[in-house]
Amino acid sequence: MLNALDKTMLEKVADLHEIPQGAFNIRKNGVGVQRNTTDNIDIVTKADKSGIDVIVKPYTKGESVHIPVIVTEEAINDVVYNTFEIGEYSDVLVVAGCGIHNSGCHKSQHDGIHNFYVRRGAKLKYVEKHYGQGEGTGERVLNPKTIIEAEEGAVVELEMIQIKGIDHTKRDTEIRLMDKAKLVVTERLLTYKDQDAESNITVELIGADSSAQIISRSVAQDNSKQEFFFDLVGRNKGRGHIQCDAIIMHNAQVLSTPKISARHSEAQLIHEAAIGRIESEQLIKLMSMGFSESEAEDTILNGFLK
Amino acid sequence: MLNALDKTMLEKVADLHEIPQGAFNIRKNGVGVQRNTTDNIDIVTKADKSGIDVIVKPYTKGESVHIPVIVTEEAINDVVYNTFEIGEYSDVLVVAGCGIHNSGCHKSQHDGIHNFYVRRGAKLKYVEKHYGQGEGTGERVLNPKTIIEAEEGAVVELEMIQIKGIDHTKRDTEIRLMDKAKLVVTERLLTYKDQDAESNITVELIGADSSAQIISRSVAQDNSKQEFFFDLVGRNKGRGHIQCDAIIMHNAQVLSTPKISARHSEAQLIHEAAIGRIESEQLIKLMSMGFSESEAEDTILNGFLK
Repeated sequence: MLNALDKTMLEKVADLHEIPQGAFNIRKNGVGVQRNTTDNIDIVTKADKSGIDVIVKPYTKGESVHIPVIVTEEAINDVVYNTFEIGEYSDVLVVAGCGIHNSGCHKSQHDGIHNFYVRRGAKLKYVEKHYGQGEGTGERVLNPKTIIEAEEGAVVELEMIQIKGIDHTKRDTEIRLMDKAKLVVTERLLTYKDQDAESNITVELIGADSSAQIISRSVAQDNSKQEFFFDLVGRNKGRGHIQCDAIIMHNAQVLSTPKISARHSEAQLIHEAAIGRIESEQLIKLMSMGFSESEAEDTILNGFLK
Repeated sequence: MLNALDKTMLEKVADLHEIPQGAFNIRKNGVGVQRNTTDNIDIVTKADKSGIDVIVKPYTKGESVHIPVIVTEEAINDVVYNTFEIGEYSDVLVVAGCGIHNSGCHKSQHDGIHNFYVRRGAKLKYVEKHYGQGEGTGERVLNPKTIIEAEEGAVVELEMIQIKGIDHTKRDTEIRLMDKAKLVVTERLLTYKDQDAESNITVELIGADSSAQIISRSVAQDNSKQEFFFDLVGRNKGRGHIQCDAIIMHNAQVLSTPKISARHSEAQLIHEAAIGRIESEQLIKLMSMGFSESEAEDTILNGFLK
């Protein structure tokens, strides 16, 4: 069922060299092609619309769910609704990469709408990697929407990475944190050529003593354009911190709009943002060590996006 | 012409104990009541609408213009359009405070629309102080709009201070910087009771090697609400820095939306924002030195807004 190209794509988006251990569901060109469930993690095809329900039993520890999506044909427009029930006091890793290989001249698009219910005391690490390739002129488009509700004491770590080759992306991320819930979001984004990317992240500190940290790093090259909107809302005693850094090169543009809203006197919210080019001191240092200018640039950018 | 109350108001908004030195224009309850011009600074009443033209000759150094506005009656709705021509290579101070004393039960409002043309190489310091008082229930409303164009090499320092007693304010500030122009904006804002304040500051770095620094500090008490919008746009090689800090108390709300837009790869833009309550360590330290809690709070707030 999976050919060499499929395997390359899986490796790019899910670090998978083999069929994954544990629960998984592989979706290819709009249909499920392989699935595995475990005693603790069930995957059920939705009856009413395209997508799956992933159900993690309470107290499940150290298990993982891989749900990579690969698109290898042109003119695909795949929309999928996935729901994740992360049971009380469980501790799991969910990896949901998407790779598009488009050799044709028509647009291929994948829109994933992901709803997470992270129950009381559960720990979730959710990794989403996006990758596009293919020599064709057909556009590669990814529009993920992620909605996370973290119940009391839940801990959510979210890693969103757009590696390469996505022409257009619009990401919407909405997270609500109840009492003592903790959130860490890491975003990494690279755009080049005429690509554009938009990322909207809204985090609401609803419960008492919840906390959120959002770290966004991006590089915009060539004629690409990036736009970021953050909205961090403190509705209760709690702490939130947004930090975004962008490196801008060539004719690229980066627009960053971070909003912090303290709607409670014990909400402590901090935001830091910086947009600039590569520091020339860093470049000169690496070049004095024998790197060419472009090698030095690559080294700095790789370090920045790591 | 000026009674004791007028003089108190003038002192609050313009630090004036006497009739000012140099050029001035005092406006009271919607009409000009006193004016002085100098050899280098002319003040001319506008023919087509309410307001004045202030014309500073090129190379004028060390002179000042005071244009305080006082409103001491209720049910006043005063709109004024002032234009400032700050001649090449001049160096002047413009003070434009507004004080409202409202003892009645009807709203008193003053809206000032100020256009500054700061010519090549000129230095302008512009201070705007807002102050309200009076036992009446009538609202005190101030909506200033300030538009500044800074030509090549001009240096603009802008101080906007809302001291006390303004029920509603909506400030719009738009600044455009040409080649090598420099801008420093300092904003200080205090709200309490049911007051609300909105401040919109847009700065465009249009010319090469222009720079802008915006420092905003505010305290929100009781049920008051503050909303800040910043938009710092880099259209050329240049540097911009926004720093905003807010102290939030009681049931107050502070919403801050700073946007930084790098539309040029050599634009370097930085933003930092923090909203939080008074640090308890600072409070404890002062209280251990014999201050009561409210004295300690006042001391910290005064230092913060200085």
